[in-house]
Amino acid sequence: MGNTFGTLLRISTFGESHGGGVGVIVDGCPPRLKINEHLIQAELDRRRPGQSNITTPRKEADQVEILSGLLNGVTLGTPIAMIVRNKDQRPGDYKEMQVAFRPSHADATYQGKYGIQAGSGGGRASARETIGRVAGGAIAKQLLAKVNNTEIIAWVSQIHTIRANLDPSKVTLEAVESNIVRCPDKLAANEMIEHIRKIGNQGDSCGGIIECIVHHPPIGLGMPVFDKLEADLAKALMSLPATKGFEIGSGFSSILLKGSEHNDPFLESNQGSLSTATNNSGGIQGGISNGEKIHLRIAFKPTATIRKAQKTINSLGSPTILAAKGRHDPCVLPRAVPMVDSMVALVLADHVLRQQGQCKLWKD
Amino acid sequence: MGNTFGTLLRISTFGESHGGGVGVIVDGCPPRLKINEHLIQAELDRRRPGQSNITTPRKEADQVEILSGLLNGVTLGTPIAMIVRNKDQRPGDYKEMQVAFRPSHADATYQGKYGIQAGSGGGRASARETIGRVAGGAIAKQLLAKVNNTEIIAWVSQIHTIRANLDPSKVTLEAVESNIVRCPDKLAANEMIEHIRKIGNQGDSCGGIIECIVHHPPIGLGMPVFDKLEADLAKALMSLPATKGFEIGSGFSSILLKGSEHNDPFLESNQGSLSTATNNSGGIQGGISNGEKIHLRIAFKPTATIRKAQKTINSLGSPTILAAKGRHDPCVLPRAVPMVDSMVALVLADHVLRQQGQCKLWKD
Amino acid sequence: MGNTFGTLLRISTFGESHGGGVGVIVDGCPPRLKINEHLIQAELDRRRPGQSNITTPRKEADQVEILSGLLNGVTLGTPIAMIVRNKDQRPGDYKEMQVAFRPSHADATYQGKYGIQAGSGGGRASARETIGRVAGGAIAKQLLAKVNNTEIIAWVSQIHTIRANLDPSKVTLEAVESNIVRCPDKLAANEMIEHIRKIGNQGDSCGGIIECIVHHPPIGLGMPVFDKLEADLAKALMSLPATKGFEIGSGFSSILLKGSEHNDPFLESNQGSLSTATNNSGGIQGGISNGEKIHLRIAFKPTATIRKAQKTINSLGSPTILAAKGRHDPCVLPRAVPMVDSMVALVLADHVLRQQGQCKLWKD
Amino acid sequence: MGNTFGTLLRISTFGESHGGGVGVIVDGCPPRLKINEHLIQAELDRRRPGQSNITTPRKEADQVEILSGLLNGVTLGTPIAMIVRNKDQRPGDYKEMQVAFRPSHADATYQGKYGIQAGSGGGRASARETIGRVAGGAIAKQLLAKVNNTEIIAWVSQIHTIRANLDPSKVTLEAVESNIVRCPDKLAANEMIEHIRKIGNQGDSCGGIIECIVHHPPIGLGMPVFDKLEADLAKALMSLPATKGFEIGSGFSSILLKGSEHNDPFLESNQGSLSTATNNSGGIQGGISNGEKIHLRIAFKPTATIRKAQKTINSLGSPTILAAKGRHDPCVLPRAVPMVDSMVALVLADHVLRQQGQCKLWKD
Repeated sequence: MGNTFGTLLRISTFGESHGGGVGVIVDGCPPRLKINEHLIQAELDRRRPGQSNITTPRKEADQVEILSGLLNGVTLGTPIAMIVRNKDQRPGDYKEMQVAFRPSHADATYQGKYGIQAGSGGGRASARETIGRVAGGAIAKQLLAKVNNTEIIAWVSQIHTIRANLDPSKVTLEAVESNIVRCPDKLAANEMIEHIRKIGNQGDSCGGIIECIVHHPPIGLGMPVFDKLEADLAKALMSLPATKGFEIGSGFSSILLKGSEHNDPFLESNQGSLSTATNNSGGIQGGISNGEKIHLRIAFKPTATIRKAQKTINSLGSPTILAAKGRHDPCVLPRAVPMVDSMVALVLADHVLRQQGQCKLWKD
Repeated sequence: MGNTFGTLLRISTFGESHGGGVGVIVDGCPPRLKINEHLIQAELDRRRPGQSNITTPRKEADQVEILSGLLNGVTLGTPIAMIVRNKDQRPGDYKEMQVAFRPSHADATYQGKYGIQAGSGGGRASARETIGRVAGGAIAKQLLAKVNNTEIIAWVSQIHTIRANLDPSKVTLEAVESNIVRCPDKLAANEMIEHIRKIGNQGDSCGGIIECIVHHPPIGLGMPVFDKLEADLAKALMSLPATKGFEIGSGFSSILLKGSEHNDPFLESNQGSLSTATNNSGGIQGGISNGEKIHLRIAFKPTATIRKAQKTINSLGSPTILAAKGRHDPCVLPRAVPMVDSMVALVLADHVLRQQGQCKLWKD
Repeated sequence: MGNTFGTLLRISTFGESHGGGVGVIVDGCPPRLKINEHLIQAELDRRRPGQSNITTPRKEADQVEILSGLLNGVTLGTPIAMIVRNKDQRPGDYKEMQVAFRPSHADATYQGKYGIQAGSGGGRASARETIGRVAGGAIAKQLLAKVNNTEIIAWVSQIHTIRANLDPSKVTLEAVESNIVRCPDKLAANEMIEHIRKIGNQGDSCGGIIECIVHHPPIGLGMPVFDKLEADLAKALMSLPATKGFEIGSGFSSILLKGSEHNDPFLESNQGSLSTATNNSGGIQGGISNGEKIHLRIAFKPTATIRKAQKTINSLGSPTILAAKGRHDPCVLPRAVPMVDSMVALVLADHVLRQQGQCKLWKD
Repeated sequence: MGNTFGTLLRISTFGESHGGGVGVIVDGCPPRLKINEHLIQAELDRRRPGQSNITTPRKEADQVEILSGLLNGVTLGTPIAMIVRNKDQRPGDYKEMQVAFRPSHADATYQGKYGIQAGSGGGRASARETIGRVAGGAIAKQLLAKVNNTEIIAWVSQIHTIRANLDPSKVTLEAVESNIVRCPDKLAANEMIEHIRKIGNQGDSCGGIIECIVHHPPIGLGMPVFDKLEADLAKALMSLPATKGFEIGSGFSSILLKGSEHNDPFLESNQGSLSTATNNSGGIQGGISNGEKIHLRIAFKPTATIRKAQKTINSLGSPTILAAKGRHDPCVLPRAVPMVDSMVALVLADHVLRQQGQCKLWKD
């Protein structure tokens, strides 16, 4: 029961990389929300393999089918089930990996935990699992847009050693989508693309950083003390494959400042609204959103599955050499951008409902 | 309902900084576990204010009372309730803060969310809230010790600009407790203590990094895809006051390596056990513990409440100047060490029970 | 982890019959709710032992202390912790029962499940456990009164073979409280009191039925398909000690009617409101409240602990004879009335918040 | 978020009566469980419409497709998703009901709660919703069979005024399945079938009682105080469409007995096992299974949708007359039998995992 996420707006996902398909049930969505179904498919298209020449060449259309919960494009308040069929399976590519555990992949730990593992392709540990998250996130985004005109922008800000140079608060979705690596700094983007290609050609892989800004978040989201907004965001993002680190606002760099330097001074404002001169808090104070932009960063490690030969062991514990065949992403970040903004959307939408439930019964 | 943490082993905490007291209910603890009650008090003593001259001088004994769940020091399998009375209250010290929102503290967001806030001292946003976590963590640690001889060691590895120089895998609890800043590198510790004093004397504050290693973790902990072990750890730790960042294993530094450099080669082993030549994974692969040491790092920002005068607003939104009186920690890290190891213990113990529930019904 | 109840408004209870005390954490209560603390104590007084000569003569004042969550009698939106100390313990009375399992009590199953049990008095299986429910229910009732002027009335409608004769929709709290058996039909009440005394004097016990009506419930409560309102009510009430059956509306008698007789015809009404000519539905249709009075009935078995000698076994499985000493209720129903209305209040208040969270974000 | 049931073994269902399909995700199933997929389809066949001439003549094959979670018929420990496509839709039959609220059906309350409802056929309130429960239950049954040889038998024991005359502990699945009304007393069964036909021909409907016995339940299931086994069973069964009452063991008839008559004397036994001379407890004491047969009864009201003309209102609140067209069951009970045993199986299997998680970590 680790495949459900959220409290009031809740997704439950299913599906292995190979098998009948993958999908999601979105439960708790408010009724009478107009859903643009094209936007769901569009988000899946941003995630799908084969979308460009720096991702895996596996061709999967990832066509979504909505089975329930909508009537003429409007939510009924009942569960929204969405499925995507699996296609283009070449289980043969994975044969060697059944015997040889891929280093730093999930093969060995799934075997250790469950005593069995999907025959090929990573099973539930495949990035294909995130289809349900992205489809659910596309619902959450439309909810947030209606409720507070909230918009979530994520982008690639670093690939291996190459960093983007830009003002996070000014990044637009158009700029993100203007190139295949999803870095809004065009110069850096070109370098990154070139670099990923080069590393991919070496049979190797690289990681990087995805950054995310939320514009117009509602004030008051977050449920101290355990379901603080940054805690739920951290969990959401650290549940994505290949993540190694999470920062909110100033993150690890906060430690180099004194309190008097790090504190965000409040600016004069109307009662009920808040604004700060700086935003080291990343839009969250005491676990609760203050209305300033929410700002976070996630580290993704280099892809574990590489063509380069590596020392490893087989399922009997004996040493062997593995050079993965298959068709793998040399760098997951371009396709991980919609995973990040989807998870952020799901957390925020859930907390909108939770805040509504506890704190909006009366005004006085 | 954000005050409960865990799935099978679950803590629910309560209490404001000022009021009758604070405490915790630990539900789901296995029956017939021998509890050393002194260890619970000992952990609370590591957390309590006034323990040294680099923490707040507030004197609070934080004496725990166990109300239920134990019979002659053995768990009954029923809820274990523990309370600590509040003492030494000087609400007068907080009077100004009722009118002036402390920058980067929770005053303003609690007011924005709930439309009301505790009269003084941070209420539920006070670090005093963590007493329940530490008392619950002391139970979890004893459970883990029995189940797999698992031991959790946390320590201060950086204060502001001063870094410890040590081998994380060799840190002992004794070394951590050998000085008041809880940094096992004695040279660095002395510098840190001096630095905290100096910054405190300036009416300012500083942050740093707490690092944590888990020795002998069970294999197979973690529930993909959302309750991956690192995801639940991230949530647990990012729910602590003043945290800004989380890293597992190689963390943000993973992005500077290629896959062939970052992957942890498996070493020859007996079937059923795993070991790796390096540990960039931090003991977790595919969201599941692999039996190697779990290794994580958390960034704490500088304390928000400082004596230095700061620009801010009052509850009407008008500008004002605040110089906090009260008695505040210039640096939370020494007292946060037991908060960190307690939260790690609670996550691991909960996952031990979850793994037991799903995967240990039969052997074959 | 079976000691927490509710989704958004959630109680976690703790405490054995003997030990430091019992209590509850109420989490998720909306902020800025005025709480009359006297009403909490008044509800506990309706539940406490020794309140009349047909209940156990154990004298326990059951004085509640509120530790957190309130400021000057107003909720903060943070957890409300309440404790009641244990007193007047005579563990000696229970000595025999430690060796002899009481038939139809929880001694044997607790031992079977946990491999250990509280030394005396039923431990967590004692009715004393319900103090936390009643204290939490007293908060929920005040919330419901504010939100929709909702009022919950429960009463004893049958004791053993003696039935009350009355119109459920006209029962008042005053009438319920006008006699010690809490049956608003005075004639029947006198008979019941006499009967309980007689059975008690025989060293025996009896059961009966408690009935409950909710006036002015909000429309729209209930979360199909699993958290239907009657499903959550059934769970809430069947979790009370000694319950054996639950009915909503027409209950088991529904089976004697045809559909055309059982269906409740809708009456002409303003759009948005509903009313029906009959109320076989008991105020709930399709798992959702329709605004008509919610009506339910619960069967309580005769108390298991009796003074009469009974055949049983000891913890080794060997036959023995048990004649309970202690001071036990010959009939739990008079004291169970506030347990019933409290559990109903907790379910409804939780669903008010859930309905608010999912369905009240916008109007159109 | 009322569409998920269970704690460790958890089902999430989706789907309206008309739309793409219905289905379920089963999460938390132990790995390495051999699943007979034919048994899943067989259970769905027991539930499907059109199976006999006393059910609705709608023909729906209800063919299940398993999308994930199995490898060569063995569970992976990952979510098992199953879907059944919708077919044979005649939305025209429901047109009138869109304007006229069916008395005692969910049309009016869904509209009141959500402000919108599925265009036809009951949407989520249709009995079609239970397909996911039955498919999930078929997994749970196979788990229980493996763990403790546990078997669950449910049957129709009363239809309207006609009662079966039999010994509940001797009912076999073969006897239940030997006739179309699923009553193992053949004489009563023939009468029931005749009676349902007659009432159906009148355009009317009837209800009745389904009874259920669990053979060889594990000892120790149930999580006091809120998740007592009977409480979770009550919720599970009262969440089924058309249920009005629930009894465990002696149920409402317990109130006619004194304690000395009602208590179940323990019989001499080996340490660790329990057996009782009578079973008024219905296999559960103190909320925990004692190893005796679990025995429960559920009241189902007469079907709300009937062909007979009824007074009602339309969505504007104005009076109208409704005579339902469509093809409806005159009596839901024959098809509800597998719904009942499925829900019981899901509760027990979940509690097997919960008991394993908390209480089986060590022996001593």
